[in-house]
Amino acid sequence: MDKIKILKKKLKKHLWSDKQEVINSYLYEQRGNLNGKSQLLLKPKSTLDVSKIIKLCNQYKIAIIPQGGRTGLCGGTIPNKKGNEVLITTEKMNKIITVDKENFNIVVQSGCSLISIKNTAQKIERFFPITLPSQETCTIGGNISTNAGGSSVLKYGMTKDLVLGLEVVMPNGSILNSIKEIKKDNRGFDPQSLHVGAEGTLGIITAAKLKLFPNIKNKVMAIVALKNVDNAIELLTIVKDLFFEHLSSFEINSNKGMALIQKHFLNILIPFGNKYPWYVIFELSSNEKNTLDNKLDLILEKALATKIIIDAIKPQSIRQYNNIWNTRELLSQAQKIDGPSIKHDISIPIKKISYFLKEAELRLPNIPKKNFLAFGHLADGNLHYNVSKPIDLSHSNFKKLQKHVNETIFDLVYDLGGSFSAEHGIGKIKINELKKYSSKEEFMLKRNLKKLIDPNNIMNPGKIFK
Amino acid sequence: MDKIKILKKKLKKHLWSDKQEVINSYLYEQRGNLNGKSQLLLKPKSTLDVSKIIKLCNQYKIAIIPQGGRTGLCGGTIPNKKGNEVLITTEKMNKIITVDKENFNIVVQSGCSLISIKNTAQKIERFFPITLPSQETCTIGGNISTNAGGSSVLKYGMTKDLVLGLEVVMPNGSILNSIKEIKKDNRGFDPQSLHVGAEGTLGIITAAKLKLFPNIKNKVMAIVALKNVDNAIELLTIVKDLFFEHLSSFEINSNKGMALIQKHFLNILIPFGNKYPWYVIFELSSNEKNTLDNKLDLILEKALATKIIIDAIKPQSIRQYNNIWNTRELLSQAQKIDGPSIKHDISIPIKKISYFLKEAELRLPNIPKKNFLAFGHLADGNLHYNVSKPIDLSHSNFKKLQKHVNETIFDLVYDLGGSFSAEHGIGKIKINELKKYSSKEEFMLKRNLKKLIDPNNIMNPGKIFK
Repeated sequence: MDKIKILKKKLKKHLWSDKQEVINSYLYEQRGNLNGKSQLLLKPKSTLDVSKIIKLCNQYKIAIIPQGGRTGLCGGTIPNKKGNEVLITTEKMNKIITVDKENFNIVVQSGCSLISIKNTAQKIERFFPITLPSQETCTIGGNISTNAGGSSVLKYGMTKDLVLGLEVVMPNGSILNSIKEIKKDNRGFDPQSLHVGAEGTLGIITAAKLKLFPNIKNKVMAIVALKNVDNAIELLTIVKDLFFEHLSSFEINSNKGMALIQKHFLNILIPFGNKYPWYVIFELSSNEKNTLDNKLDLILEKALATKIIIDAIKPQSIRQYNNIWNTRELLSQAQKIDGPSIKHDISIPIKKISYFLKEAELRLPNIPKKNFLAFGHLADGNLHYNVSKPIDLSHSNFKKLQKHVNETIFDLVYDLGGSFSAEHGIGKIKINELKKYSSKEEFMLKRNLKKLIDPNNIMNPGKIFK
Repeated sequence: MDKIKILKKKLKKHLWSDKQEVINSYLYEQRGNLNGKSQLLLKPKSTLDVSKIIKLCNQYKIAIIPQGGRTGLCGGTIPNKKGNEVLITTEKMNKIITVDKENFNIVVQSGCSLISIKNTAQKIERFFPITLPSQETCTIGGNISTNAGGSSVLKYGMTKDLVLGLEVVMPNGSILNSIKEIKKDNRGFDPQSLHVGAEGTLGIITAAKLKLFPNIKNKVMAIVALKNVDNAIELLTIVKDLFFEHLSSFEINSNKGMALIQKHFLNILIPFGNKYPWYVIFELSSNEKNTLDNKLDLILEKALATKIIIDAIKPQSIRQYNNIWNTRELLSQAQKIDGPSIKHDISIPIKKISYFLKEAELRLPNIPKKNFLAFGHLADGNLHYNVSKPIDLSHSNFKKLQKHVNETIFDLVYDLGGSFSAEHGIGKIKINELKKYSSKEEFMLKRNLKKLIDPNNIMNPGKIFK
C-alpha cells in the first residue's frame, strides 16, 4: 500500500486532510516565488499528536515539512514538487500554557502567533520583544526555528536570546523537554540549543518558554537627515555612548527608499520633503517614566552642533510618529509594488558598510546606480540590499542576471567578514551559499549532526542541506 | 614506543613538561577532595599549537585533560589515577586579542583570567559581568566550558548569554571559528553552542568573543532582616515589580550562616548583631548617574510598612559596604574552616524553596537542624545547601552518609522540578546524577553527540559521562 495511505489509516481522521483545495493554500510562500506539491496536511493539536505522527513518518520513511505561519522568506516551509512529502501545520497548537508576571516568562505552544504572545504579555504589563512585519501571522515555532531577527534585536537580541526552554519532538518521535520552572540547570552541554535556527530539520518545536521584559513605559523617536552613511555611524556612536541601554531602534533609509514610499503610498507625508541623501530613524525606550525626551534632545543637539546630522524631526503626535515609522516599515511593500528585484539580507561589519555600498556598485557596472536600494537595521550591521530590474532589461534576462548579482554581492560580503544570511536563514534558496561560504569542517559537522539526529532524513529534507 | 614518548618527540620542547614537580600542581582541585596522576603537561601558546597537539593525541588515541584556572568544583580538570592521560593548560594563552568599546565586545584567548577581562573592560568604561569568588584565578575558557554562573546572573544571565562567538579546536584537531566582526549571522543551527557547558568533552575553546556592557556608574545596596524565606520572596516580588532592570543581586543568608562568619572572621562587624533568623543582601545598579538611592528607600519603606522585612541597614561607607558583602562572600570559606560538609549546588522553583527547606530536614531526621546551611542566589532559585558533619559523628561515618544525604536532597529537588546542578556542572562527581535525573532520550542524545564529535573519546574522558 502507498505509504501516505498507511499514514492516513493509522491516524485519526481529525488529524489530517487530503482535500487538495485545503492543501493548496499550504503550498506556496508569501513572496510567491516558491511552491511545491503535497497530498496530505497533518493538523496535530497536541505534542502527543505530533509525536505519534513523527513516529509513523519515521517508521515508513515519509518526509515531513513543518509549517508555522509560512511567512519565511527562504522557502523553508515549501515541500518538493514530487508531492511525496507530507505537511504538518502547528496552527491548532496555539495555546498560551502559562504566563508568569513575577518571574518574567511565558510558556506557549509553538503554533501561537507572535502577536498573541505579545498581547498576552502586554495584558500583564510585560513586553515580549520580537517585532516583525509578519507578527499577525508568523508563529513562535517559526520564529525560533529560523532564529528570527527584526527591529528589536538591537536592544533585546535575536530569538535565541529570548528562549528559556523548548519542548521538541525529535525525528524518532521522542519528546525532549527543557521547559522548567527553574532558571539555572547546568548539566553539561545543551542539545536543545541546536533547534534554534534549525528550520525544522532536527525535529518539531512543540512548545517554548520565553523571556519577558518590563513593559515599555516611555519611548521617544526622531528621524534625522544625513549627508552619508559614515555620518550615520558617527551618530550611532554618540547614541550608544550616551544611552546604550535605551537604544531600541536605529534604522537607515535613503532618498531612493523615501522616493519609493512617496511613489506608492500617497497618504504618507514624506519627512524633509525628501531633500536629503540619507535618513536614520532611531528610538530610545525605557520601562521607567523618566526623562527620555531630554536625552533625545541632548543627542540631537550634539549631532547638529558637530554637523553629523543636517536636520531632525521629532514627531509631535502619534499620527506623525506612525507616519515616520511607515516610511521605513512599508519599504519592502513599496519595492514589491514597484517591480521585481533581487533581494539580499546581509550583514557587514558596521565600519565597512560605506565601503561595501560603493564597491558593490562598482562590481556591478551594468546595473544603473538608481537601481540599488539599501536600508535596514544599521546598528546591527544588517542591510536589506536589493537590486531592482533596470527598465530596459526583460524579465527573463533579469532572472538570468540573478546568479551573477548574488555571487558578486555575497563574495564581496564574505571578503568583508560579513554574512550572506543575517536574519532570514537558509531554507531552500541559500543551500549553495551555505556550503560555499562555510569552512569544510563547519559544514561537515552540521551535516553529520543532521545525520545523527535524523538518520532517515525525514525532517524537512532539502532545507539547509541538499 | 610508549605513546606519550611519541608525543614528546613530535612536539617542540617548549610545548611540554614531564617534570613531576611541575606536573604535581596540576593534579588536584581547589577543595582538595579530588586528585589524579599524569606524566605530561602541555603548554600551548597559540590555537595552532593546540591544533597540532590534539591532532597527535587523536592519532595516537591519547586522552587529554583541558585545564583553565582549575577552580571548578566538580573535578572537571582532574586526570584519572592511572597516569595515562595528558594535561593541557591554557595558561600561556592569556592575550586580550581586541577590545571594541563602541560595539561593546572583547575578543580574548581562552586562558585569560576572568579578572584580566573585567579589568580591561573597566579601562575603557565597559563592564564584563561574570562575578565569581575565583575571578583572580579562573579563566574564561573554564567559565565558558562550565557555563559559569555567579552573582551577576540575575541581571546579566549565565555565561552562555555573554558569548558572541567561539574559536574551538575540535577532537580531530580542526579549528572551528565563529568569532566574527558582525552581530547577525543566521545560517542554520549553531554547533558552536554545544561547547558552552561541555566541560572540554567536545573540544578545547581557544578564544572567545564576549559581550560587554556600559560601566556601572551607580549602585546601592542594603542588608535586610526577615522572619522567614517566604518574606524574602515577597521582598523579591516588590523589588522586581518596581525596578526589575536595576536589580543586580539578591542573596539570602541565615542566622546560622552569619554565626559562622562571626566565629571565623573576627574582623567582620556582624549586621544587626545577628539577632534575626534570615537576611537578604540586595543591590540595584545602573549605568546612569540617576537616583537609585531614592529607589532603594522606596523599596525599604514599602517592605517595612508591610512588615515583609523587620529591619534594614544601608551602608554609609565603602568600608561598611564591603563588610556587609563579606558576610555573604566569605561563607564558603567560613564553612570550610569550620569542618567537613556535604555540599549541594541546587536550584528550586522559587515558590517551593520554603517547602524544600522544611522537607529536606524532615527527610534527614538523623542530622541535627543546626547542621543544615542554606544560602545563595535566591532570585535565581539557586541555593548552596550544605550539610555539615554532626559533632558526634566520625569522619568516616560522615563520609559513608554522603551518598544517602545526596540522594535524599537530589530526589526531593527533582520532585520539586529543580536541578541537582544549578551552576557547578557535572565533572567527575555528578555523572551518576546526570544519568539518573535525565530522561533516557535526553541522556542518549548527549552521549551520541559526544560519540559523533569525539569518536576516540580523547577529550576529557570520564567527565559528564562514564
